[in-house]
Formats: sequence, C-alpha cells, structure tokens
Amino acid sequence: MGYFTEENSAQVVIDTMSDCDNPRLKEVVSVLVRHLHAAVKEIEPSQDEWMQAIQFLTSTGHMCDDWRQEFILLSDVLGVSMLVDALNSRRPPGASENTVLGPFHVADVPLSPMGTNICLDGKGEPMLAHGVVSDLDGTPIEGAKIEVWQTNDDGFYDVQQKGIQPEFNLRAVFRTGADGRYWFRAVKPTSYPIPDDGPVGKLLARLGRHPYRPAHFHYLISREGYDTLTTHIFDPDDPYIGSDAVFGVKESLLADFVPVDDPELQRQNAFETRYFDVEFDFRLANEAV
Amino acid sequence: MGYFTEENSAQVVIDTMSDCDNPRLKEVVSVLVRHLHAAVKEIEPSQDEWMQAIQFLTSTGHMCDDWRQEFILLSDVLGVSMLVDALNSRRPPGASENTVLGPFHVADVPLSPMGTNICLDGKGEPMLAHGVVSDLDGTPIEGAKIEVWQTNDDGFYDVQQKGIQPEFNLRAVFRTGADGRYWFRAVKPTSYPIPDDGPVGKLLARLGRHPYRPAHFHYLISREGYDTLTTHIFDPDDPYIGSDAVFGVKESLLADFVPVDDPELQRQNAFETRYFDVEFDFRLANEAV
Repeated sequence: MGYFTEENSAQVVIDTMSDCDNPRLKEVVSVLVRHLHAAVKEIEPSQDEWMQAIQFLTSTGHMCDDWRQEFILLSDVLGVSMLVDALNSRRPPGASENTVLGPFHVADVPLSPMGTNICLDGKGEPMLAHGVVSDLDGTPIEGAKIEVWQTNDDGFYDVQQKGIQPEFNLRAVFRTGADGRYWFRAVKPTSYPIPDDGPVGKLLARLGRHPYRPAHFHYLISREGYDTLTTHIFDPDDPYIGSDAVFGVKESLLADFVPVDDPELQRQNAFETRYFDVEFDFRLANEAV
Repeated sequence: MGYFTEENSAQVVIDTMSDCDNPRLKEVVSVLVRHLHAAVKEIEPSQDEWMQAIQFLTSTGHMCDDWRQEFILLSDVLGVSMLVDALNSRRPPGASENTVLGPFHVADVPLSPMGTNICLDGKGEPMLAHGVVSDLDGTPIEGAKIEVWQTNDDGFYDVQQKGIQPEFNLRAVFRTGADGRYWFRAVKPTSYPIPDDGPVGKLLARLGRHPYRPAHFHYLISREGYDTLTTHIFDPDDPYIGSDAVFGVKESLLADFVPVDDPELQRQNAFETRYFDVEFDFRLANEAV
C-alpha cells in the first residue's frame, strides 16, 4: 500500500488490520474509518477546529458517570439512537412500530391489577389509557406483559427524583387476560427537556435547537413468541411534536387524547373530574426466528 | 420534512438546524451527520454493538486528564490526525513535507549554539544531524528558528520522565546563520510505543495492530514570510517504518543514517566513537497570503 497520503488515507488505515482475528470488528472499524475520512476531507477542518472536536468529545466523556450518559445523549440528538432502533426493529406491515427505549426503564417493577391508578403523587390531569394487544391477524394476545412508565406532571420520571416522588410513581407492569385488553389510570404526560446542562445541551443551543421531547408515555410489551415492542405513544397537540430533540416520534405513534366531561363515564372509570381518554391498540409481530 | 424514518434519517436531523446562526458549525455538523448515518446504515449495529461503542467512547473520555489525551490518541491511530495535517499543509512541489506535531513539543526552550550535543543523559549511539534550510529556489534562509526534539535511548521524551531525565534532554532550539546551515549532536532515535494501557491501546490489540512508532526525530522550522514546517525525519531501517501506529511516515521524510568509523571525522565532530551522520535539507515554501 505504501505510506499515508491524502488520497489513500482511509485504505492505509484499513490495511493495518490484516492480522485482526475478529471479522465483525474489522468490518465495523473499516466502515467507520472510510466514512470518517470522507467526512474530514469534505469538512477540511483547521487544526483549531479539530482541537475543538477533541475537546468536545473529552468534555462529553467527563460528563458521564453512573447517573449521566452524555454520549447516549449525543447519539440521541444526532438521530443515531433512533436509526439504530429503526434498523433493529424492521417489522411486517400492520405491526406496531418501535421507538427508542430511553434511559428511564426499570426492570422488576411489581405487577399491578388492570385499572390501577399509577399516579401516586396526585399531580396533573387524569388520563385513562386502554386498548388491546393482538397479533397481526387481530387475535388478542393473552399473557402479554405490558410495562408502562412516564414523567409526572413536573416532567420528571420517578427515578430522577428519588425521595421526592413516591417509588414507582407513574410506572407499572400489567399482564393481559384472554381478551388482550389493558387499561390503567395515570395523568396526561407533559413535554420535558433532556438534560441540557452539559456539552450536548450546549451544542444543541449553538445549533439553534431546543432540548424538548414532546409529551409521551412509554410501553414495553413482551410475550414469548412475539417480537418485543418498545415504544411510546405521543400527544399530537404537543408544541414539540414536530421537533422531538431525540427524533422518537413516528406518525403511527400519535394517539388521540380525548377529554371526557360526562359524569357517568367519569364515575365508571373512578375519576371525580374531567379526564383524557387515550385508546391505543398494539399489534405484535411474530418473533423473528 | 415529516417525522424520522430510516430512509430520511440524516436529512431530518440536518433540518433541525435551520435556526443555527453559525454557518460553519452547521456545515460541519451536517457533514458529520450525513456520514455518521451512512456508516450506521452500512454497519447495521445491534443494540449491543451500539452500547459497546458508547462504552468505548465513555472510557476513552474517562482516560483523558491534564497529562493524557486519549481522544487525540484515537484520532492518531485512525489516521485522522495525519489527514487533518495533510489537508492543512498542502505545499508546492519541492517544499519539505509536514507530518504530525505530536504531544511532546515544548514552547520556550532556550536557544543553543549550533553544534551543541543535546543528549544530556549519555545514553544511546551518537548521531550528527545537519543540513541546510533554504527556500524553494535553494537560497539559504538566514534566521530560521529550528526546534528539535526526540526520545532518549529508552524511548521516552524528557517531559515524560521529569525528574528522571535532565531538563531539555534531546530538545533544543537553534537559529540559522547566513548560510542556512544547521548542525547538532544527539543520539540515534529508537522506536517506541504510543501509550497503550488505555482503551485505544486495547482497541489496537483487538485490531491486530501494534502500538509502535518507528524511530524519528522532530523538527519545527519557522521564519517570518515562510510556511512553518512541522515534521519528523525517520530511520528507514526501523522495523516499524512501514507500519507507524499513527501514520506519520512519508517517503520524502526518510533519511540516511550513515555510520562513520573514520577517527578523523569523529574527532572533527567531537565524537570519541562511531557515530551516525544524518544529512537532511529542508525547503520552506513562502507563507500563504
């Protein structure tokens, strides 16, 4: 190959991996090197700009600890997390679509009976979420595990405010019966900013971008034999619905939040005031073999 | 544009920057996003592979402190540092070529008289380095500042071994006279590994790559009116000459290390034993206006 030149730069780097005994790693690094060199040639960074990039990566790394993952945040705001999710969750037509898991899922949450009011801090506008989990033919799925979680009315998940919010506030696990139906009571979610006091937040500001995610709540629905569905459903009237800082919104994940003023319906669903009715069905694809 | 999809992913991200008031930053991020998304689509990383990448970047960031810059090391071993250097030092034919500065340059080193023996620890095989600094027409340049630095015979720069090596060991500054000539005494350089006890070193090992740089010594040659030359000259017989871990070698930077056994020449050049004679001329381009 010869020595490094501007023209053959990527190939010279790739050629050094001839003794690599991990074909997948070699492929991944080769692709990254090719695209990275192409990007650098297109950008033609000055030495000072290159140093700014080094310093940005360094401060992003220094921001990371057990509680804060600034590189995941960077991946999120560059659309990379959503792209990886999309590539890993291609499904047949008719199947519910995935979106990013996000950092606030918690394993081992205790099972709750259907209909539970999972809002434990009494804040916000009441909401009834319900629907049916079925397969692609519309046959209800019995025994599906439905994990739900969302922020409280102040825009924080319970795990972000330990000691302030009750444990498992707005977080629960349900299991469907033979009819595949689920229903629970919660509060209408609100939009909230991703953590923006670090290098990624500063970058967003310099790019003229806001840090907000539109109001949504999370679902993780799993059942043996079916492709696990990780998704949110979104409020289409949220001001940030068209500009989610992490690009999680999909057309098919917009729900209707229907205000219910009928006292009889309120009574039936154990609300004492107006509530929002959110009906949303999920269709699971068969597990890829 | 609509919501994020696998197909339009990069463009959706780029479109969020419409309010950015820094056109260069917007351009840089747009190019990076386009290439990053293209790389991700080509790689199709699993969620687990994506997380490994996040963890690699995080541990690389955590390795960085005031003394260790692991992201620069990463840039170096991926050929990015050399590429940025190449893009920023395109020169007319006949001009001496640049290579990377490296982390061991020191500003404000005191001026030494020509001919000084800059090896202060007495280790290694003696070497006489000499040549002429001229312009592209071959006219000698008077008053050129020549900064030189290299490792000692153990493969460490003075600043890596403060308290072990004498201050300014194998590091000096000279200024040319009317004839443009320079000469100084030192020791034949040795190959040495880049710091390989961190994430970048572990990556090199997994890629089947060694961490060595072939034997070289550094020059930084500057004079008002001329394009500053940052370069090394290399020993072509070094076992790593064809596989520099940071890709710094260029054909035009290979020197001859000629052993001199003639006692008369040894006496003339103030050596008591065999030494290596390394003659290397530099040609500086006019400063770009």
